[in-house]
Amino acid sequence: MKILLIGANGTVGSAVKAELAQRHDVISIGRTRGDFQMDISDSASIRSLFEQTGRFDALVCAAGSVTFAALGEMHEGDFELGLRDKLMGQVNLLLIGREYANDGASFTFTSGILNRDPIRTGASAALVNGAIDGFVKAAAIELPRGLRINAVSPTVLVEAMDSYAPYFRGYKPVSAADVALAYAKSVEGLQTGQTFIVG
Amino acid sequence: MKILLIGANGTVGSAVKAELAQRHDVISIGRTRGDFQMDISDSASIRSLFEQTGRFDALVCAAGSVTFAALGEMHEGDFELGLRDKLMGQVNLLLIGREYANDGASFTFTSGILNRDPIRTGASAALVNGAIDGFVKAAAIELPRGLRINAVSPTVLVEAMDSYAPYFRGYKPVSAADVALAYAKSVEGLQTGQTFIVG
Ligand SMILES: NC(=O)c1ccc[n+]([C@@H]2O[C@H](COP(=O)([O-])OP(=O)(O)OC[C@H]3O[C@@H](n4cnc5c(N)ncnc54)[C@H](OP(=O)(O)O)[C@@H]3O)[C@@H](O)[C@H]2O)c1
Ligand SMILES: NC(=O)c1ccc[n+]([C@@H]2O[C@H](COP(=O)([O-])OP(=O)(O)OC[C@H]3O[C@@H](n4cnc5c(N)ncnc54)[C@H](OP(=O)(O)O)[C@@H]3O)[C@@H](O)[C@H]2O)c1
Repeated sequence: MKILLIGANGTVGSAVKAELAQRHDVISIGRTRGDFQMDISDSASIRSLFEQTGRFDALVCAAGSVTFAALGEMHEGDFELGLRDKLMGQVNLLLIGREYANDGASFTFTSGILNRDPIRTGASAALVNGAIDGFVKAAAIELPRGLRINAVSPTVLVEAMDSYAPYFRGYKPVSAADVALAYAKSVEGLQTGQTFIVG
Repeated sequence: MKILLIGANGTVGSAVKAELAQRHDVISIGRTRGDFQMDISDSASIRSLFEQTGRFDALVCAAGSVTFAALGEMHEGDFELGLRDKLMGQVNLLLIGREYANDGASFTFTSGILNRDPIRTGASAALVNGAIDGFVKAAAIELPRGLRINAVSPTVLVEAMDSYAPYFRGYKPVSAADVALAYAKSVEGLQTGQTFIVG
């Protein structure tokens, strides 16, 4: 399969790459690193990416930013990054990418644990993750040509605990390699409309 | 209790009003009807509402629009209404309204079934509903002064089937009166961070 992997050099994405590159042609995409550069929060940049990569069999997005801040200090504008980047960035990867997707291609997006098991400063992340989980469930039933869409919703990663531990006290982290399995299940299996919870 | 009810003349809201007005002082708010007019998608209008109503003990939002359209015909802009109106409208009711909320006051928002049990044309609704359910879960744990926040997530209402039936074949509708009970549970009980599913 020809797989477009956005965020291929990140904590999640590098493990996804290690898993999928064993069996597939993985194209690494990032904002600054990888075979191609793009910005998921900019739909012109998304379209330009697909014009460079051409058609594909699977797209995995392991990128997406939200604002982490104490709710008491958050105002409307603090939700903007999450809506534009992690949420609509991934939605737009489907809305634009479907034109370049081969029959039977899959889209695998990343949400995360925070809408199920919240932390301090996580209100925007929870909002965005819930939106992604809801979107993939609904979008799946309307996709034509055997196209599929799933989300992977990991808890915090072992490999991220150096910086995230203070925010995730008491959370049992999972290895990036275990998280990568869920992406393989989405890409190489046949399920659609699912949120694969890891951890 | 002094309860601000946004959407008080709608299908959901009028049943919520009938339930809560038996025991409380319910102020009816809408876009065009009610004691006060405002637009949840406009944060200046939200602030102006609170300046007119003054402090409150509970806020219920039974308003919120999204675009219903076939996914195959949706583009980025078709998600804008849901993000600005039903989603950020309700988020902003909390972000602004908390300044006017008495200690122990509650916020009750409306999501809906479509992120759990999707229909054709429901991708934006599913996205927004999932976002609201995730947001209330996370926001609840950070609220000060005993403030609470919940969502009510109804299936389709009996009273809406005249117009919605073609979209909800096979869904068992619930009465607006039963849906209203979930709002009473949120307002008059003590739970927080919950999505009360009805139907
Ligand atoms: N780390 C965790 O423990 C964890 C747990 C649950 C969920 N998640 C979610 O997983 C996703 C990835 O997290 P991560 O920790 O792996 O992040 P990360 O290590 O910071 O890596 C992010 C990757 O995405 C790329 N990227 C960032 N913004 C982009 C944009 N706007 N357009 C295109 N590419 C962009 C980066 O490109 P460059 O390589 O060019 O910089 C990088 O490759 C996020 O949605 C996060 O919320 C992470
Ligand atoms: N009806 C159902 O079967 C059902 C099922 C599940 C979930 N829901 C959700 O419940 C909510 C209400 O639905 P409904 O069917 O009761 O709607 P509705 O009958 O159309 O009533 C909407 C109410 O909200 C007010 N309103 C609309 N937009 C507003 C805005 N931007 N700012 C302030 N007020 C606004 C309207 O004001 P005016 O009175 O001035 O026009 C009206 O009172 C929606 O979020 C909907 O998705 C409905």
